[in-house]
Amino acid sequence: MFDLKSYLNSRKRQVDKALEQKIIPREKSGRLGRAMTYSLMAGGKRIRPILCMAAAQAVSGGDADTEIIECACALEMIHTYSLIHDDLPAMDDDRLRRGKQTCHMAFDESTALLAGDALLTLAFEILASAGAANAEHAHRWIKIIHSISRAAGYRGMIEGQMRDIWSEGRTVSLDHLKNTHALKTGALIRASVYAGAVLKGASSEKIEQLDTYAKNIGLAFQITDDILNVEGDPEIMGKATGTDQLCDKATYPALLGLSESSKYLSALIKNGLLALDIFGRQADPLRALANYIVKRKK
Amino acid sequence: MFDLKSYLNSRKRQVDKALEQKIIPREKSGRLGRAMTYSLMAGGKRIRPILCMAAAQAVSGGDADTEIIECACALEMIHTYSLIHDDLPAMDDDRLRRGKQTCHMAFDESTALLAGDALLTLAFEILASAGAANAEHAHRWIKIIHSISRAAGYRGMIEGQMRDIWSEGRTVSLDHLKNTHALKTGALIRASVYAGAVLKGASSEKIEQLDTYAKNIGLAFQITDDILNVEGDPEIMGKATGTDQLCDKATYPALLGLSESSKYLSALIKNGLLALDIFGRQADPLRALANYIVKRKK
Repeated sequence: MFDLKSYLNSRKRQVDKALEQKIIPREKSGRLGRAMTYSLMAGGKRIRPILCMAAAQAVSGGDADTEIIECACALEMIHTYSLIHDDLPAMDDDRLRRGKQTCHMAFDESTALLAGDALLTLAFEILASAGAANAEHAHRWIKIIHSISRAAGYRGMIEGQMRDIWSEGRTVSLDHLKNTHALKTGALIRASVYAGAVLKGASSEKIEQLDTYAKNIGLAFQITDDILNVEGDPEIMGKATGTDQLCDKATYPALLGLSESSKYLSALIKNGLLALDIFGRQADPLRALANYIVKRKK
Repeated sequence: MFDLKSYLNSRKRQVDKALEQKIIPREKSGRLGRAMTYSLMAGGKRIRPILCMAAAQAVSGGDADTEIIECACALEMIHTYSLIHDDLPAMDDDRLRRGKQTCHMAFDESTALLAGDALLTLAFEILASAGAANAEHAHRWIKIIHSISRAAGYRGMIEGQMRDIWSEGRTVSLDHLKNTHALKTGALIRASVYAGAVLKGASSEKIEQLDTYAKNIGLAFQITDDILNVEGDPEIMGKATGTDQLCDKATYPALLGLSESSKYLSALIKNGLLALDIFGRQADPLRALANYIVKRKK
């Protein structure tokens, strides 16, 4: 039996430790560095880094090496930057995240804006630095930087965020909602899995199967978020629930109802797991993650 | 005699044309793409792209090829993103830039925030895409991405912006001001020159000389900006002048006086030009640019 809990804990510790070392130690850095560290270490689940590490493991079998951990850190920084900017008053105007003050509440708006910018930029610095340190793999790193920047950019995550804002209070179709999710969270999740696979020199067949897995669980992840916003426990989640309905946000529960949303979720997970068949036991962490993603309480 | 005006015009046209093609055509893209294009095509001088092209020419002699132009576009995108974010209400709260409405005035705050994020991310996508298209040069591109991300990041441009905000209304030393400028504008100017040189496979001696040039003219560029804010013609500049004094901003004219600032400027340009001696006539564009930077009226 694969022990997911201890797997997640050990991977999260690995990522947390590496992330802490990425920014100049708190006491030496100024306000900007403190704000970056504050949001980065505010208790994220590290889903994207762990997906990257688990995808690498599915391909090569081994534990995460330095290269994989560098890449994992960069992915988490991009995710964190997107949260900081999403929380700003001009965007979602959120005061709490994971039970703590959001960056602009703990610091101020201009610091939060710049801390987000800085984390996004630092992510690319880390990726390029890892590539520069290993000339033999330079081409792999270039492919990864390309894929991550595309996924995070204006035809990916940022466009998803834009659509999300502009669909508030409007009637949207299921297709529109699916596209928005594919952009807003799906793209970076796919890029995380792709990065782990490419760093281990996966064949194109394996990359394709892993992408099918990532597409399915990426959407499942977002639908679970939607459902948790209806059914979740604010205490466990560390943030208010019911906010989507309050803002008249387009969500799966709103469009399909809770029961149909759950059925759809199960189908997505099933498809995701199917794509892992060619990997054998090495993909057990990815399988466990798929199940975790729908069963999580926060 | 080197004809600077026609040189600048032709290079600017090259960059403008390439930039226009980088973002999905206006009519097909949504609000986000329109906001990105709006700010990108709002009449920038294209100093950083042209410095990159001129540095490449100093090393190799030839005209700018596709690789150089891709890199030049990425640099201008990073510069434009920084202007969009600097203009936001939480930052400098500027309504006009280059005689046109700033991005958040022409669109809205959330669109401007995301358009800035998207331009920064697209810059890295373009750099990585150019590197992926030329496997032989992958390692050069990795070095360039590393240098640009470092220059633009929290130990470079963003930290400079942070210091700039926090020094408003405070007494700062000349050293502090110099450091702030080196970070805020100097770092990206140095990275622009470095990128052009590395793409042409410059020797480390040449890279070093070019960096001395870039350091000197980078600071000269910022001091000229400071002086123009005092002496410039708002009509020609397309924005209000006298604003630094109004905000009690630390500037060279404020700390040294106008006459001493001008003397310092001349010394910087002289040092910058000296570093170009080893390049012969191929560095004429860089020489002309150094003179242009201090004599410009906007």
